[in-house]
Amino acid sequence: MIKTALTELLPIKYPIFQGAMAWIADGKLAAAVSNGGGLGIIAAMNADADYLKQQIAIARQLTDKPFGVNIMLMSPNADAVAEVAAAEKVAVITTGAGNPAKYMPRWLQAGICVIPVVASVAMAKLLSRAGAAALIAEGGESGGHVGDTTTMSLVPQVCDAITLPVIAAGGIADGRGVAAALMLGAAGVQLGTRFLVAEECSVHPNYKAKIIKATDISTIATGKRLGHPVRSLKTPFSNAFFQAEYSPISDQELEDMGKDSLRLAAIEGDLQKGCFLAGQVAGMVKKEQTAQQIIEEIFDETELILKGANRWIK
Amino acid sequence: MIKTALTELLPIKYPIFQGAMAWIADGKLAAAVSNGGGLGIIAAMNADADYLKQQIAIARQLTDKPFGVNIMLMSPNADAVAEVAAAEKVAVITTGAGNPAKYMPRWLQAGICVIPVVASVAMAKLLSRAGAAALIAEGGESGGHVGDTTTMSLVPQVCDAITLPVIAAGGIADGRGVAAALMLGAAGVQLGTRFLVAEECSVHPNYKAKIIKATDISTIATGKRLGHPVRSLKTPFSNAFFQAEYSPISDQELEDMGKDSLRLAAIEGDLQKGCFLAGQVAGMVKKEQTAQQIIEEIFDETELILKGANRWIK
Repeated sequence: MIKTALTELLPIKYPIFQGAMAWIADGKLAAAVSNGGGLGIIAAMNADADYLKQQIAIARQLTDKPFGVNIMLMSPNADAVAEVAAAEKVAVITTGAGNPAKYMPRWLQAGICVIPVVASVAMAKLLSRAGAAALIAEGGESGGHVGDTTTMSLVPQVCDAITLPVIAAGGIADGRGVAAALMLGAAGVQLGTRFLVAEECSVHPNYKAKIIKATDISTIATGKRLGHPVRSLKTPFSNAFFQAEYSPISDQELEDMGKDSLRLAAIEGDLQKGCFLAGQVAGMVKKEQTAQQIIEEIFDETELILKGANRWIK
Repeated sequence: MIKTALTELLPIKYPIFQGAMAWIADGKLAAAVSNGGGLGIIAAMNADADYLKQQIAIARQLTDKPFGVNIMLMSPNADAVAEVAAAEKVAVITTGAGNPAKYMPRWLQAGICVIPVVASVAMAKLLSRAGAAALIAEGGESGGHVGDTTTMSLVPQVCDAITLPVIAAGGIADGRGVAAALMLGAAGVQLGTRFLVAEECSVHPNYKAKIIKATDISTIATGKRLGHPVRSLKTPFSNAFFQAEYSPISDQELEDMGKDSLRLAAIEGDLQKGCFLAGQVAGMVKKEQTAQQIIEEIFDETELILKGANRWIK
């Protein structure tokens, strides 16, 4: 068994979180990951309060283990879903795409463990002071909304800046990645892309098939011009978007190009117009397994690698 | 001591290469790194045959240890410097920015250990078949010319695809990075940014000062529109270049903006017009030391971390 500061902080068997993928990370997937020994997380994404309440109820039907909710701070419904998560007293709230400071007092008062995603040292310091219980340092190789600094560069710099447990996200798909994250100073990991192909994940089969067929160079970060880049699989949609960034169309037209593209990928499996969010490790994801199998396989590998770490010392 | 497949392949004390930084990695720096127990590398960059001959002679005056030469394949003088490196029978040739297959037979016939830099699995497979002795898998967090896939994502995928020793480059500045690279499957590391502040590095003092002041978000990759992005410190020059990529100026005008900017940074220390190449780990580089001190400190840290790797197993 691998035990770290994160398994001390939370009642989870393995120090692993499932990333909050919009239109994908629902109550069913979160419950499967939590039942498998990790921390499942429901993505509140842009949805409204009723959707989140429903997904929390589904997760609670399927597991008695703790799970989390991710509040996407750019959501037009952020205030409402932030309050739902507090009122429902979920075990953990993670946050993305912004600064959650304004919600922190309410969440902390509700006894919730708040674990924001950060992409820089400055944000890590700020949220550490604001009462975060741990931080997720997410490298730019992740899927979805990404910063620029990569996991190898970001995790040690965040670890040097704060004393909280740090969870590494981005670039991790197997035990090698977990072992590497521990070496960098992390106390745990968050994986998205690998859980996307979990049997319990209800994403459209076209999406899973595209992940399983991906290689090391199958993803692209688009939206740099708009200041909030998103990493996804290279598709007719993402290639057109990348080209459009260098064309004279307005920022508003560019934003509009992206509308509905996440839903089209995850729910409709639309290979032309869908935006299939994925991390650069998509090329390492080779098969569908249950969430529990994924977690157990990853930590068996991790343990083996760590046990062999002495072999380089002569 | 840390021993790997790389210290078996080459007569070096530590499995570490110094990256070939244009206008920076000269004979003096390469000799200092080789004397310190790593593999120093002279950057042939865009220079002509005479420059390279001169730098090889300088290195040979300063060390009796093996060192390498990097052939930048986009150089207008690539044919000439490729031949100099062969005729001089340097111990190692590394290559960057392209496919060195056309030079490989000559180099191999000269008994040289050829270790190309690759940014993808496809190139790794191709150069493995062409006779490379090892490969440098370079993540997009590196300084200088970069690919997109990051070290965490690239190294395991390259290791899965070939049987040669893999050297991880990008995102590594200390023992945590070296230990992480070993976990990912690498047999060694290549560092550029940290060696840039070596006492034996003759780069302009303004350049060293900028590296030492850098934070985790101090670099930017420019030139994506041109298809060959370059990572450097954020400066008036790089910010203007990034903006210009989204303006209607032609690709040729954009290329012209970059002319002479590397020399201006490295030799003149020009804070306005210089392009200060650096990796995302610049924020971890805090002081000037000798090359030997850098190497010994890094591997002392690595050994300590690897010895502690069992502590997470319960």
